[in-house]
Amino acid sequence: MTDKEKIYNIIKRLPIFAACALQKLEEFAAQSSIHHFPKGQVIFVNEDKATRFFSIIDGWIKLYRETLDGTQAVVDVLPMGQIFGETSLFQDNIYPYSAEAAENATLISLPLSLLKAEIDENPKMAQNMLYSMAQYRQKQDREIEHRALQSAPQRIGCFLLRLVNQKAKGTVTINLPYDKTLIAARLGMQPETFSRALNKLKETTGITIKGSTVEMDSIQQLEHFSCAACSSEFPCRDLKTHSVNS
Amino acid sequence: MTDKEKIYNIIKRLPIFAACALQKLEEFAAQSSIHHFPKGQVIFVNEDKATRFFSIIDGWIKLYRETLDGTQAVVDVLPMGQIFGETSLFQDNIYPYSAEAAENATLISLPLSLLKAEIDENPKMAQNMLYSMAQYRQKQDREIEHRALQSAPQRIGCFLLRLVNQKAKGTVTINLPYDKTLIAARLGMQPETFSRALNKLKETTGITIKGSTVEMDSIQQLEHFSCAACSSEFPCRDLKTHSVNS
Repeated sequence: MTDKEKIYNIIKRLPIFAACALQKLEEFAAQSSIHHFPKGQVIFVNEDKATRFFSIIDGWIKLYRETLDGTQAVVDVLPMGQIFGETSLFQDNIYPYSAEAAENATLISLPLSLLKAEIDENPKMAQNMLYSMAQYRQKQDREIEHRALQSAPQRIGCFLLRLVNQKAKGTVTINLPYDKTLIAARLGMQPETFSRALNKLKETTGITIKGSTVEMDSIQQLEHFSCAACSSEFPCRDLKTHSVNS
Repeated sequence: MTDKEKIYNIIKRLPIFAACALQKLEEFAAQSSIHHFPKGQVIFVNEDKATRFFSIIDGWIKLYRETLDGTQAVVDVLPMGQIFGETSLFQDNIYPYSAEAAENATLISLPLSLLKAEIDENPKMAQNMLYSMAQYRQKQDREIEHRALQSAPQRIGCFLLRLVNQKAKGTVTINLPYDKTLIAARLGMQPETFSRALNKLKETTGITIKGSTVEMDSIQQLEHFSCAACSSEFPCRDLKTHSVNS
């Protein structure tokens, strides 16, 4: 299969392209390319002029900004299947964050100009973007809620619960998707806070963590502990796929 | 002037209606109404079926959710000129948060069904919604960044800076827009944390606060203190109007 065919097959399954004509998808594929980014490589920088957006085929992508005093704030860490950089279209064609490969990553780079043209011409495409942005807004609202109300151990518990099949029965094993320093940053914690909170979580819920492997006798161990301080029901309704990782 | 004329004159200035034909605006006005909500009154509840969205003519509106253990998480507090409830259209027609008058408030209630029809028919309208949602996303991203990186006193300083004319020279006086308990909740702080942080802010920057009146010799007092831990430039570029309150 050529790269263009591979790209076509992947992007036709992306929610934002659900209303896109097949011929238009071929145009997208023709103007797109596949790139590999080793862990740590920067993809673009906050406030750069934006001409491309990206679809994650494999790996994890860290979105972040840097403060005036040089500290890094992690806005989000995105898994495969997600897109990023696309909202630049509505922000003066400037990237609103920096992006870096959090683990070795493979991306499709797509042209923003074609996305803009398609949104202008195809109302269904604009609506799919609206749905996708509304979903993301709810995710960010929940994040703000959790940072206000959940304790640090509860936040880690919540992070783990969102990696598992939430309907699983019995013993569950999770592999942490990226390293603990980044998990701490993603949860808005200092590394030392994260360490202490992780120990507290283990003591309170009885889960075990060895290296990057987390084991628990049942999901309820974490659910009782973390979900009491959340406004959403469990299982999390916004998770379409029940498992990223297991 | 009749209520309908008043509504027409107000909504035609809202950014999301910028691409709406005048005749369509008249339809909106004909199906809309003005309502007064005393402080503390609930407007709608999270997960209620959504049929209306709202434009704030006067007062402040608190958006919030309640956790399973009964604690309230404030998602945002919106000033006049803002709309809310409109994203329900893209979330199965369910309100994604509860809304309550944080101060006595006057609202226009508008039909979501007409908004849906207009978005379906008018691509420019959908695009204006996309711009508005992208702006809101950037605001929420910044909020998440600040909760991770700014200290509690810095967050209060940032909150105050966003209420003033950021280009003002010399002495500046601000009236707090709503009561301190709600400011604390809006910033994701416990009341005691807020009190301590406010004292620290006064000591460090030399600003004075009496009742709901804040005074400072110059904006730079707060800027030096708060903006060091922020990734955005000062003055804040996302503030279109430079003053909500002063």
